[in-house]
Amino acid sequence: MCELFAMSSLMPTTVDISLEKLARHGGFEGPHRDGWGIAYYQGRDALLLREASAASESLLVHHVERYGPPSELVISHIRLATVGARKLANTQPFTRELGGRMHVFAHNGDLADIEHRPGFAPRRFRPIGETDSELAFCSLLHRLSDAWLAAAGRTVDLVRRMELVAIFAAELREMGPANFLYSDGDVLFVHADRRIHPETKAQLPGLHLLSRNCRESVPDLAASGVMLKTCRQALTLVASEPLTGENWQPLDPGELLIIADGQITHRQRIGD
Amino acid sequence: MCELFAMSSLMPTTVDISLEKLARHGGFEGPHRDGWGIAYYQGRDALLLREASAASESLLVHHVERYGPPSELVISHIRLATVGARKLANTQPFTRELGGRMHVFAHNGDLADIEHRPGFAPRRFRPIGETDSELAFCSLLHRLSDAWLAAAGRTVDLVRRMELVAIFAAELREMGPANFLYSDGDVLFVHADRRIHPETKAQLPGLHLLSRNCRESVPDLAASGVMLKTCRQALTLVASEPLTGENWQPLDPGELLIIADGQITHRQRIGD
Repeated sequence: MCELFAMSSLMPTTVDISLEKLARHGGFEGPHRDGWGIAYYQGRDALLLREASAASESLLVHHVERYGPPSELVISHIRLATVGARKLANTQPFTRELGGRMHVFAHNGDLADIEHRPGFAPRRFRPIGETDSELAFCSLLHRLSDAWLAAAGRTVDLVRRMELVAIFAAELREMGPANFLYSDGDVLFVHADRRIHPETKAQLPGLHLLSRNCRESVPDLAASGVMLKTCRQALTLVASEPLTGENWQPLDPGELLIIADGQITHRQRIGD
Repeated sequence: MCELFAMSSLMPTTVDISLEKLARHGGFEGPHRDGWGIAYYQGRDALLLREASAASESLLVHHVERYGPPSELVISHIRLATVGARKLANTQPFTRELGGRMHVFAHNGDLADIEHRPGFAPRRFRPIGETDSELAFCSLLHRLSDAWLAAAGRTVDLVRRMELVAIFAAELREMGPANFLYSDGDVLFVHADRRIHPETKAQLPGLHLLSRNCRESVPDLAASGVMLKTCRQALTLVASEPLTGENWQPLDPGELLIIADGQITHRQRIGD
């Protein structure tokens, strides 16, 4: 069970994350963490900080807790290793350049047998590590690459991107839980799926969402390990578990959202 | 005038870098730095830390000074902006995945008119920022990509890689100073060129090299801002300026070296 978190905002926001608190909040116990990573977009590029360890002593963790750079789009992942050894190459989020933009992907779930599915054979983009999640990301980028390369520096039509991401998400869901966050630096795609409780095997919502507009106060997430430094503005947060007692919306399995500048701009339900 | 630094070793070495000291040593004065970056290879992947500022207050800088992760190959760049704004996307080293490996590139020099040269038009790999250096790196990867994709997970023949890098280096030198460090995670390629003194316009060696074998003591570079924590072992260092009073070899313009596991394995002179 991994912990996903994303923040999209209209104006740059400082997001400091206590990985310890966030991991505990997500139900991780003791030394269960096998790595963590955070991508902070800065324009079309992203700073990616990650470590293949719980690293509670690391200065990099302190940096993330106290000095995260201002960003309009942050994607984070805390890992419990289910597939692949504990090493940097298996540590999410994953990033690749395509079309002169850094693309960022983080996934929670297990994709059974993905390496034998024809649409997921490594082509132009190849995994550096051994996770099912990175193989899925490489396939997603391959599907998007013709459109991005033809765009020659412009932004690919959003409807076309949405179509390709929806087909990809539907194929992933056939293999197993496919909660993912994906950004091309222009918008954030969120696909929600089920999550299986490790003990009771009950199906739980895989992602939760909280949106604020510029007239509402900024949510106080400090108790859950996330500190937002910003003024009132459009802001959307996505997390595996609700981070506050507020009215977080559980997303339905198969929901695909587009979030841009802190607001949900598209929402659809793809086939079960 | 940027500062390049690389370390290759047989066994993992901890390389802590004081960016302040290293920058001063390289002739930077006061607030001349416009960014810095360090890539630490860990297997086929690399952790890339960078900031688009002098950032003498940043915790990320302290991390680099005191807690650099053990690595067998480290590539660093301190930037004085000559081309492109001060932002993350223009901050070296640059990285891209190709053939399931992270490739890392850092360049020092100015490549006049590169955007109009036919061999350097963006194709499969596209720059995220605006620097001549990133455009050159994208072209290098495009030239190497057929070989890496055909290798399907294996390592491309080293002679073939050397040929392609040599042709690329010769083309770069027609445009301007082309000191660069490039690694595919298997070996480190070093290409040396001239450097132009900013005031006297004298031509200086662009790179210097110090090699140690396992019978020699580890060089003490602390005064220049580089702290190596390792035992006696094969170790090769490359820097824009000699970092100690020891016998650093100035490299000739047009020299292309391959360094693997801390030792120089190939050395050739390409056309002037």
